[in-house]
Amino acid sequence: MSSSTRFPNSLEAHAAASNLSATSSGLDVRLAARSGRLATHTSGLAAEYVQGNVAILPADLANDFLRFCQRNPKPCPLLAVSEPGDFRLPELGADLDLRSDVPRYRVWRHGELVDEPTDLREIWRGDLVSFVLGCSFSFEHALLADGLPLRHVQQGRNVAMYRTNVATRAAGPFHGPLVVSMRPLKAADAIRAVQITSRTPAVHGAPVHLGDPALIGIRDLARPDYGDAVDVAPGELPVFWACGVTPQAAIAAARPAFCITHAPGHMLVTDRLNRELDRA
Amino acid sequence: MSSSTRFPNSLEAHAAASNLSATSSGLDVRLAARSGRLATHTSGLAAEYVQGNVAILPADLANDFLRFCQRNPKPCPLLAVSEPGDFRLPELGADLDLRSDVPRYRVWRHGELVDEPTDLREIWRGDLVSFVLGCSFSFEHALLADGLPLRHVQQGRNVAMYRTNVATRAAGPFHGPLVVSMRPLKAADAIRAVQITSRTPAVHGAPVHLGDPALIGIRDLARPDYGDAVDVAPGELPVFWACGVTPQAAIAAARPAFCITHAPGHMLVTDRLNRELDRA
Repeated sequence: MSSSTRFPNSLEAHAAASNLSATSSGLDVRLAARSGRLATHTSGLAAEYVQGNVAILPADLANDFLRFCQRNPKPCPLLAVSEPGDFRLPELGADLDLRSDVPRYRVWRHGELVDEPTDLREIWRGDLVSFVLGCSFSFEHALLADGLPLRHVQQGRNVAMYRTNVATRAAGPFHGPLVVSMRPLKAADAIRAVQITSRTPAVHGAPVHLGDPALIGIRDLARPDYGDAVDVAPGELPVFWACGVTPQAAIAAARPAFCITHAPGHMLVTDRLNRELDRA
Repeated sequence: MSSSTRFPNSLEAHAAASNLSATSSGLDVRLAARSGRLATHTSGLAAEYVQGNVAILPADLANDFLRFCQRNPKPCPLLAVSEPGDFRLPELGADLDLRSDVPRYRVWRHGELVDEPTDLREIWRGDLVSFVLGCSFSFEHALLADGLPLRHVQQGRNVAMYRTNVATRAAGPFHGPLVVSMRPLKAADAIRAVQITSRTPAVHGAPVHLGDPALIGIRDLARPDYGDAVDVAPGELPVFWACGVTPQAAIAAARPAFCITHAPGHMLVTDRLNRELDRA
């Protein structure tokens, strides 16, 4: 009986199978993903290391997507872009292999999800360009380190995410709404959170909104478009950050003939340290 | 006919009389106050220079007041303290003379306002210790320079100030509520204002609260305890900063036998530049 049979669908299963934990290195996690020992989400693993959203597109769309990221830096904080066809990204990890180091991928054809493989070696193409974008795990690490309570973490849920009525700046076929994540905080904690996340523009930076959700087109906080709802308690403000789901929504809107992303929560773990992202 | 007769009670009168403006130096303003040519408020004058709240206390109370400032740094950001009896403060201005360089003073006995002189040379005592505290003029300058709208400035009013239900940390006889100033801002501007004012902890720093006024004991924004009311428009949040009226309220609560403060808005203009206060 394998570990994953004993602990189905749990991080503990894979942590047990692969001996991974918050104190693992980025390389530990990548090697586990590469060997097939880790195929689940990476939240809480290798907590000191930057994790990234991944988008892999054919070269003929890559320039448009690059411009989309440059025009929308808060939801699309670009950490690295590969050369066409090159599955390596040495600036994020000396041995890094984009074909195998993400625990689970999503393959899309014409905007439809067609597969969720754990390895891309059989479908890799010489024209693919890989983009790695910063992820809120890094700033949540900084908020928690400062003692700020994050309800979705306390409750073991995914963060609540919403499509807004704020348009991104389009580039080529890439367009769509800004998607935001929401964390409820008391006012003094919200002010502190602005200060902390302002120091990490490479992982979404400061909030884009706080207070009345209707002002950015969110009708009902209890019904997020992605992730899990959490309560906003009396005396708390909902605080909204630009979210890495925004580029995925833009890719879905563009419906490219072929593209690959990471599966939600199954991030690329790099060799860069979260503390390197702090510009303060 | 003197200039002040032609333009009674107006900044223009004194600006005309003394040729002072936003581009004047701190020394220009101090020399005008020292010579009696300037006896009105200093808002808008010598805009690049740090202006300070002033409190002058007998030496037997000075240690308690110093501890009060150290325990409450957001409302009482201490820029300088004099030696007992010394009316100079060379770290704020080489020639600075605390007996004459504030355009108008207030003299208090047992908590009662007894005089509003423009010069202290006749009542100066050898046991007086002077405190100069940062003032929101500096951070408002930074907010305006970033393009943020400040309604009370647009409307030519004094900022609205409120006593809160947040207690300061007492020291000796000095105690009382935190007093806050309020500026209404749209959420994105409020977030930007947090970022900008976080960089200037020497002038009250980041806001202490935003959103629901009732959470800090303010019942009616339309009825400020000091200054002038301004409207909060739909889609705006009230944003609250610790205010330099807090130490004046603590002095009023302590009811010292003798003390001197600046008259509201009639600040000490120093030789230090606002941009020196920016720690970023």
